[in-house]
Amino acid sequence: MAYKSDIEIAREAKKQPIQQIGDRLGIPAEHLLPYGHDKAKIGQAFIDSVQDRPDGKLILVTAINPTPAGEGKTTTTVGLGDGLNRIGKRAMICIREASLGPNFGMKGGAAGGGYAQVVPMEEMNLHFTGDFHAITSAHSLLSAMIDNHIYWGNGCEIDQRRVTWRRVVDMNDRSLRQITSSLGGVANGYPREDGFDITVASEVMAILCLARDLKDLEKRLGNMIVAYRRDKTPVFCRDIKAEGAMTVLLKDAMQPNLVQTLENNPAFVHGGPFANIAHGCNSVIATTTALKLCDYVVTEAGFGADLGAEKFMDIKCRKAGLKPDAVVIVATVRAMKMNGGVAKADLGAENVAAVRDGCPNLGRHIENMKKFGVPAVVGINHFVTDTEAEVQAVMDYCAEMGVEAILNTHWAEGGAGIEATARKVVDLCEGGSANYAPLYGDDLGLAEKIETVCREIYRADGVVMDAKVRAQLKDWEEQGYGHLPVCMAKTQYSFSTDPGQRGAPMGFDIPVREVRLSAGAGFVVVVCGEIMTMPGLPRVPAAEAIRLNEQGLIEGLF
Amino acid sequence: MAYKSDIEIAREAKKQPIQQIGDRLGIPAEHLLPYGHDKAKIGQAFIDSVQDRPDGKLILVTAINPTPAGEGKTTTTVGLGDGLNRIGKRAMICIREASLGPNFGMKGGAAGGGYAQVVPMEEMNLHFTGDFHAITSAHSLLSAMIDNHIYWGNGCEIDQRRVTWRRVVDMNDRSLRQITSSLGGVANGYPREDGFDITVASEVMAILCLARDLKDLEKRLGNMIVAYRRDKTPVFCRDIKAEGAMTVLLKDAMQPNLVQTLENNPAFVHGGPFANIAHGCNSVIATTTALKLCDYVVTEAGFGADLGAEKFMDIKCRKAGLKPDAVVIVATVRAMKMNGGVAKADLGAENVAAVRDGCPNLGRHIENMKKFGVPAVVGINHFVTDTEAEVQAVMDYCAEMGVEAILNTHWAEGGAGIEATARKVVDLCEGGSANYAPLYGDDLGLAEKIETVCREIYRADGVVMDAKVRAQLKDWEEQGYGHLPVCMAKTQYSFSTDPGQRGAPMGFDIPVREVRLSAGAGFVVVVCGEIMTMPGLPRVPAAEAIRLNEQGLIEGLF
Repeated sequence: MAYKSDIEIAREAKKQPIQQIGDRLGIPAEHLLPYGHDKAKIGQAFIDSVQDRPDGKLILVTAINPTPAGEGKTTTTVGLGDGLNRIGKRAMICIREASLGPNFGMKGGAAGGGYAQVVPMEEMNLHFTGDFHAITSAHSLLSAMIDNHIYWGNGCEIDQRRVTWRRVVDMNDRSLRQITSSLGGVANGYPREDGFDITVASEVMAILCLARDLKDLEKRLGNMIVAYRRDKTPVFCRDIKAEGAMTVLLKDAMQPNLVQTLENNPAFVHGGPFANIAHGCNSVIATTTALKLCDYVVTEAGFGADLGAEKFMDIKCRKAGLKPDAVVIVATVRAMKMNGGVAKADLGAENVAAVRDGCPNLGRHIENMKKFGVPAVVGINHFVTDTEAEVQAVMDYCAEMGVEAILNTHWAEGGAGIEATARKVVDLCEGGSANYAPLYGDDLGLAEKIETVCREIYRADGVVMDAKVRAQLKDWEEQGYGHLPVCMAKTQYSFSTDPGQRGAPMGFDIPVREVRLSAGAGFVVVVCGEIMTMPGLPRVPAAEAIRLNEQGLIEGLF
Repeated sequence: MAYKSDIEIAREAKKQPIQQIGDRLGIPAEHLLPYGHDKAKIGQAFIDSVQDRPDGKLILVTAINPTPAGEGKTTTTVGLGDGLNRIGKRAMICIREASLGPNFGMKGGAAGGGYAQVVPMEEMNLHFTGDFHAITSAHSLLSAMIDNHIYWGNGCEIDQRRVTWRRVVDMNDRSLRQITSSLGGVANGYPREDGFDITVASEVMAILCLARDLKDLEKRLGNMIVAYRRDKTPVFCRDIKAEGAMTVLLKDAMQPNLVQTLENNPAFVHGGPFANIAHGCNSVIATTTALKLCDYVVTEAGFGADLGAEKFMDIKCRKAGLKPDAVVIVATVRAMKMNGGVAKADLGAENVAAVRDGCPNLGRHIENMKKFGVPAVVGINHFVTDTEAEVQAVMDYCAEMGVEAILNTHWAEGGAGIEATARKVVDLCEGGSANYAPLYGDDLGLAEKIETVCREIYRADGVVMDAKVRAQLKDWEEQGYGHLPVCMAKTQYSFSTDPGQRGAPMGFDIPVREVRLSAGAGFVVVVCGEIMTMPGLPRVPAAEAIRLNEQGLIEGLF
């Protein structure tokens, strides 16, 4: 049997006019700002008007550590939203926007897959509603204003060697990673070292996704540290007086984007911060607004549960006052096999023992979710090669762990294939067993917060931090940043910092290479290993094959 | 009497839903892609469907050489469109989009002014429908692909010292004018000199504004020269295989943007190339589409008639097969006085003699327009300080030149204040006296084309070109570029290259500093003097005062 590709399925979608999707959410036409016929932004006045309503239930979809076999986290998020609607619940999903640049390196990512997708897929992988362009603009304005400040007398006494604010562009461009700027003489300023990251790595992106409203956005932007003086005191964005104009540039980008699933259910697709140096979740404003409009809101977090769910719980929920009611942990038989030591080429053959050997990876994530006080269900994302015995092995393992595992076929069947999980999620939400709490309190020291995550979530023996890092954390505590949560930046492929260590590794330390303060976003980034904030293009970039065909359709993007 | 500011007037506009504006143009709802409730793009399928219709009449609004007193060219364009509608004609206007970056340096420019404006003014000065962001993305993709090509083996044998493709950002950022890129070691590529221009200076912008359709766009993008080899042979964008993906990024940006005037008449606002190193006109696709939808289309060109109208006639009309039917030359009493030697501070006092002394600047533009075979009328844009005698002096001068001059009060009264000019324009269009021809034929040599413009339009005694420039032009002729028109880049403030020489200077030469080939756009840029392609920010950038106020309105942008 030949399967249709994601893009073929997406192009066959019977989309409803976006106003119709908005109608179902009770959004009056004047507050729904269309972008074409299938995308819209929600006006701020409407968002303000629903603040007194009660909140719906919040469900997080997370996953095992990613493997090359794929796990299908977004697919499950989309499917579960459709499944909840199918069983008669008023539900919607909230997911992240895609970055434009990487599509020109490797083929682009869909939003979901198979019959569990969000559309319009092509626009979502290109300019969409322009949010990321607005972030690039706001970021670039601050960059220009910092160098302009230095040029016209440097009233803030910025040490040009200590400008921490790098530039951004939404493109994979390794040649901009490290540059010397302001060359060419007096008219162009004072030469200094600089560099570009990709837009999703901007602190502006993290802030947009954590801000409650435009006022909060402006305040957080102002709090960003952009440079240090010779005496090492920080220079803030507000010292450069850029936060007001940046907020103006971001005012539309702050509004959630409404689109639809293939089954015409509503979806907010909004914001997309990096999941390593930032928290990797869609915007707080999308999630909080969705909770006012629906009884069930399904959202997801980046990478596996060790990074994504932990940050969702410890950063996003803590800061936004969200209380998740249930967690779905996505696993696949294939990924269990890879965690059990099977190579990707050998995944086709049945191997129940390997599945069983890989399950402890899943098991550790199940245990971890309990530490946040939120009940979980495991969603097995069905692949055509899975055998009954393999699926049963995962189910048996989960039963031993005291958690139900349910086989989902939403990829092939849409919402109809995930109704059982939808019912289970409703039971968990209505059961009232959720008692969310972050892993650590605000008052714990910064070093102790890092140690807590490494011990409780990763199961590391210890944390290796040199004296310089510890002194830096102490300094920040003295400057009033001690209450911030930590944002771990490490490989997503393992609980350890070695991407080759699949399964449930033991007996390792977590080395902390560097710590960075995101004072506007409000977290301390803990860098454990090589973190790439500006990707490059491959030898043959996908862009070489991307074009419009005779029918005006995009070829080569997917 | 206190006058309302442009932004106050714009905010009081009684805008119609953009679908209603589209209805009047006969655009079915499915082909009108809304961006919010007051902006829309026109679908390509609709544009294709109207190609068999007859064309309306095309009217160019141009002006005397700009002075600090202001001339009101866009204001007249908007007013004339409204005026034509008021006298019962089916008319619309086509103007350029504004660049985002410069708004954060000096206060932003409105689209028109007083009661002759296009709305929504704020969006048009910010992200609008994202066209310029798409151009930045397409340009940046090619930049990344060039360095990536060099990185992965440099199959095209690009000489890294001869990469002519600079980078762009839509921000005033002097510190990016000249940089060294690819620093930091092996993983980041081969260090080389590079630099950024502002987005509107990108050849991609010029191409977008000259392309007939997406196919033509792709072909022109492929034809851009991005670098040279050691043997000085050119490397094209198509050698890097970027033009297909760039076209995909630009497919929405190619669609004209529909907005409305304060009097609810339709306006296309689309494209905005530099008026010095490019041709400074709105997109061909907007103009040609408007001509299929209306009986009268009013458009404008950048700077004064010596640069703007000449390029409109010799580049845009030549390449797009447009035949303008009438020209309106905008003049003001105040600008005539400045051309007559009065300082800006002294403009308030009546000075008929100075008006008369300044009129030869206008006179030369009147003569020049006749050389293109298009009948003209002078539109005097009324300012409150103008006296009757001063206005009469301009009218008398024009009468002596054989051209009617009409006083317009659209700034204060909207379309009602420019009905007489509208009637005159209709007479000129219907009179059938237009017999458009470009100033020079395609077959003339490149050096001779430059000499023709300098002699016929500027009235220079001669052109100073050194042997290197002449040899370069010869080379291009041999390579098959001899048929291209020339695109003059010189000061807009004078017929000469000295911005201080107002009026109608005589006895000067035009020195050609440099020539550049825009092989994709299809013209040879002739640089006569200092041309800035990346502006800087002033000591106190406007951005410092820009913010959202308590009502959510933007402050400080205008």
